[in-house]
Formats: sequence, structure tokens, C-alpha cells
Amino acid sequence: MAKTIYFEDVQIGDEMPRLVKEAVTEVQLVKYAGASGDFNPLHTVDATAKLAGFGGVIAHGMLIMAFVAQAVTAWIPNRCLKKLKARFTAVTRPGDVITVTGKVIDKKEAESLIVCEVQAADQKGEVKVKGSFEAVLPKKE
Amino acid sequence: MAKTIYFEDVQIGDEMPRLVKEAVTEVQLVKYAGASGDFNPLHTVDATAKLAGFGGVIAHGMLIMAFVAQAVTAWIPNRCLKKLKARFTAVTRPGDVITVTGKVIDKKEAESLIVCEVQAADQKGEVKVKGSFEAVLPKKE
Repeated sequence: MAKTIYFEDVQIGDEMPRLVKEAVTEVQLVKYAGASGDFNPLHTVDATAKLAGFGGVIAHGMLIMAFVAQAVTAWIPNRCLKKLKARFTAVTRPGDVITVTGKVIDKKEAESLIVCEVQAADQKGEVKVKGSFEAVLPKKE
Repeated sequence: MAKTIYFEDVQIGDEMPRLVKEAVTEVQLVKYAGASGDFNPLHTVDATAKLAGFGGVIAHGMLIMAFVAQAVTAWIPNRCLKKLKARFTAVTRPGDVITVTGKVIDKKEAESLIVCEVQAADQKGEVKVKGSFEAVLPKKE
């Protein structure tokens, strides 16, 4: 669980701690299908994914979004997080190693709010998910 | 749910109602993996199953066993069923249409017990699961 982080201790340009996930596996997609209830065969049936032109199974976008959320909430306590939005920019395949990075792009003193950009990219630097989040942080005084 | 069935109404040689399942699908195996917690990739990852010499994914044996149990308990109320045993004799693949059949092979008057054999076979008649079950049925008088 994320430790308390104070508004004063965060500066524009600061990078959030990066999260590097283990390589995505087919079995992970099977597990995510069961956990999420999303049984679209593109994510688990190789032949279907090939027929659809993907060359093989692709990860659920929401799984990669979950990696992003994991990285964000490892840094910012859940209760402080006010908004998290993201769009999917590329597909993720088994074997891809996803790294989540982000940085602070704005601070709003009156609201004690920080605005950050965040992204998930693979080992080649291809960006899979690109987004931003906002958090209201406690002040020291 | 199975209706009440009386000991006197069952004769040696009687066939149980057959159950014909829809063709097994890859997504069904993904769902069964999640439901059962058996994430062995032989059942969901084509490449792994090929490497293992199976030529592609194979169904969880317990899924076929579940078809057998479904057929049995559609005929015999759960509370009457005392024993169900089966062994796996062949693998089931996506596309296989499983039919469960069985028949009464013995009756034990003193115990009000029937003994039945049961099997699950595919569209070519290949037997996947072979077993037997025993049930204690109520008597009319």
C-alpha cells in the first residue's frame, strides 16, 4: 500500500516510481478472462486471433490498464486518487514486458492537486496505454 | 432437477436418458480453467499443447467428467446418488461433440440399489470417460 505523500514533496517534472511487470503470458490472459468475465476469444484462442489478423492472441486492454492502476496506486494512496484516464494505443502480446512510467505535469496549489501523465510501454518502447491521473495530496501545515 | 424415480420402475438393461452436449470450444476451456482453477496451459495454450505432442489444446478431463455428472443427475436426483466413479480413456478436443450414455447393469433389492455403467463418447464413438454409478432409489410401497 502506498505511503502518505505530501503536496509539498511533489514537484512538476518528478517521475513516479516505475513499475516493471513480468512478461505477459497466455495463461495470465486465461486467468484475466476468468477474473474479468471477458471471454472474447481474441485474448485466448490463437486460431481466432490469427483469423482476425492479429497473428496470435492479444492481451485484454483492461489488463494493461490494471498495470497502470497498480503503478499509480503503489505511489499514490487510493483515497487521494481522484481521476485516472487512459486510452489504448497498441496491442500487447504474450512475451511483452510492460513498464509503467509517469511524471508530474502540473500542481494546483489551491486544490492541493497534482496532475500526472502516465504510460505503459513494452520492451521496445512501444506505448500500449497513454493516460493521466489527478490526485489530491495532504499538505504538511 | 431430476424427478423422483422409483426402484420398481428401473430394470436391468434400461438405458438412462442420453445427454448430447454442444461441441466443446476453446473458450469453454478458458471458462473451465477459471471456474476450476486448473490453469495447466495444455488446456488453453495451443503452442504449449503442440510442444507437448497433443497437436493442440485438450479439454480438462474433469470437464468431461462434469458432463457425465450432469447426465447422471438429470436422471437420478442428487440425494439418491451414492457413488460415481470414472476413468479417462481418451482426450477430448475442441470441436468434439460429447454424448453421455449409460445403462442399468444390476439391481440389489435388499438395498434398493441400482448399479449403472456410464460413458462419454465423441461423434466418432471414441470413449473419453468410462465409469459407473450407484444410486439408492425409493420404493413405492
